[in-house]
Amino acid sequence: MSQKILYTNNISETITTLAGEMDPAGTFIVTDTNVAEAVLPRLSLPYPVITVAPGDENKNLTGLTSIWSRLVEAGATRKSLLINIGGGVITDMGGFAAATFKRGIRFINVPTTLLSAVDAAVGGKTGINFEGLKNEIGAFAPADAVVISTALFSTLTDEEILSGYAEMVKHGLLSSEADYRELLGRDILSINPDALLPLLEKSVKVKERIVIEDPTERGLRRALNLGHTAGHAFEAQALHKGHPVPHGHAVAWGILVEMILSNMALGFPSSELQTFTTFLKANGYGCPAVSCEDYSELIALMRHDKKNNSPSEINFTLLESPGHPVIDRSASADDITAALDIFRDLMQ
Amino acid sequence: MSQKILYTNNISETITTLAGEMDPAGTFIVTDTNVAEAVLPRLSLPYPVITVAPGDENKNLTGLTSIWSRLVEAGATRKSLLINIGGGVITDMGGFAAATFKRGIRFINVPTTLLSAVDAAVGGKTGINFEGLKNEIGAFAPADAVVISTALFSTLTDEEILSGYAEMVKHGLLSSEADYRELLGRDILSINPDALLPLLEKSVKVKERIVIEDPTERGLRRALNLGHTAGHAFEAQALHKGHPVPHGHAVAWGILVEMILSNMALGFPSSELQTFTTFLKANGYGCPAVSCEDYSELIALMRHDKKNNSPSEINFTLLESPGHPVIDRSASADDITAALDIFRDLMQ
Repeated sequence: MSQKILYTNNISETITTLAGEMDPAGTFIVTDTNVAEAVLPRLSLPYPVITVAPGDENKNLTGLTSIWSRLVEAGATRKSLLINIGGGVITDMGGFAAATFKRGIRFINVPTTLLSAVDAAVGGKTGINFEGLKNEIGAFAPADAVVISTALFSTLTDEEILSGYAEMVKHGLLSSEADYRELLGRDILSINPDALLPLLEKSVKVKERIVIEDPTERGLRRALNLGHTAGHAFEAQALHKGHPVPHGHAVAWGILVEMILSNMALGFPSSELQTFTTFLKANGYGCPAVSCEDYSELIALMRHDKKNNSPSEINFTLLESPGHPVIDRSASADDITAALDIFRDLMQ
Repeated sequence: MSQKILYTNNISETITTLAGEMDPAGTFIVTDTNVAEAVLPRLSLPYPVITVAPGDENKNLTGLTSIWSRLVEAGATRKSLLINIGGGVITDMGGFAAATFKRGIRFINVPTTLLSAVDAAVGGKTGINFEGLKNEIGAFAPADAVVISTALFSTLTDEEILSGYAEMVKHGLLSSEADYRELLGRDILSINPDALLPLLEKSVKVKERIVIEDPTERGLRRALNLGHTAGHAFEAQALHKGHPVPHGHAVAWGILVEMILSNMALGFPSSELQTFTTFLKANGYGCPAVSCEDYSELIALMRHDKKNNSPSEINFTLLESPGHPVIDRSASADDITAALDIFRDLMQ
């Protein structure tokens, strides 16, 4: 698990220098049609482009096969290089294409969203959705390098910035009380790119440290699941209802639910619940449209989370306090019901 | 790259003990319809069976997807276990299915042919064919265990035994002159299973030693390619002509071609060419139906071998003498033409 991560404001030169040093036999960009139109012209990179349809609904076997086919057509060899430029869909699927083409070729990730910079592009998880299940098929395969530049985020919407920032807050909660307080104290939507880059670097290093110790998620890496057991359930239910929500917003709500469970199981301070709720409201994270009639579906969705070892348990990463996570804590359906009640009270 | 390899005459007990020790959440057998009919009833293993169509022509995305789907249907988790029972098609495709399902679950290979025992089942290469290209998509993923039993080979044809034995001879050539001479001295088709098991163990250990040093084929592992650059070309051409030949037979012929190239480039002893030709004839390895009109296609096929770093070179593993391989030797089309002429003279 060695992954070079470069933070830069000079993205095109960084990519071409890096690719040159790797001395590949053929370099190919993988991206989606949106990024191809909005971002690639600014970068003027001298490599052929493989374009796939955008969106999580296209992170599937069809998209994956189209990348493999284009590589075959272009005569890519074991020494070729893929540069995945895009959000998490592109770095996940392009990374998995690279990990499996001729049993693995080198690849570079260039995240174009704050969310993918802080999450998907780093840490070696690649994959596609399969039969409606998220990331059901994939591999642990670290990019040879990740090039992170906040200069790419200028076209992101406020919603996309908030979504990515939620994962940064998660890293703060895993890392230390000081990091967490620093992140809560910022006015997210008015941070300029130059000020965001060092904050982002600090955040990515939290993930890096965890992934280096546990690349294939046997233990410690499960800490990164904080907010995600409940968050994925909110995200999936919203999708079923036809009103999809940004991943990071669902994670932010999930963090609050799991802070409540942490309060119940581990004495996580009650005052922190109020602090985090205030942060969510002040920054416009919104609230999931959830009533008590939704609880059974939400709990069923949590039960099917990939991180569970058996269908009879629901596994969470909880917190003793900010900076002190505890992995592999299970909660009962009754506990989760109580937590969802408190969550709705707080968010009202 | 840790891979437990068990040699046994008590296969069912070995498998069930091993699977029990791994404490999986659900165990599934992957096999093909032939093995399901001819071998599984003898083993009486207490696990559900996922069956795919037999043959290399079914080692493809359709077969792979059907295994993934069955695992989803059955509720397999990250803690589940796959047991691949079959020839190289099954261990390659079942291994790749396991390597990618939920980003990787554990698997055991149980080779049912001599060829897969000595070659495909060991060493972590998994994959499928894609758009007519062999093993174009795959991963390096060692089985957690390989269970090898010559008791499974009782239904193999003479041709299948010869095919597997050719890979054992290749290992002898890579290992030492003494190992090579020992293998040449045997009357292949009359070795009984109990005598074959230790020979096979010695042979597999040669591959193991090489793979431990170089799991992802950056250097030393290319030695295992001995006989395969020319061999794959014979195999592919025979397939195109509608008269497929066993893999090991093509490798045996390829070894002779590459011994001739070794003689030209590295002074490999001429007397050894005669010795190996005699071995091939005495044991009934036959001869490829090749005339000088076939040379250009054969050379083009060698040029497209996955092990080449660029289309302008043809890369071989050659030999200074038995037991002394040299990797990464390129040969010109003229050299190969000359070698094919000598090959045909010898095999006449």
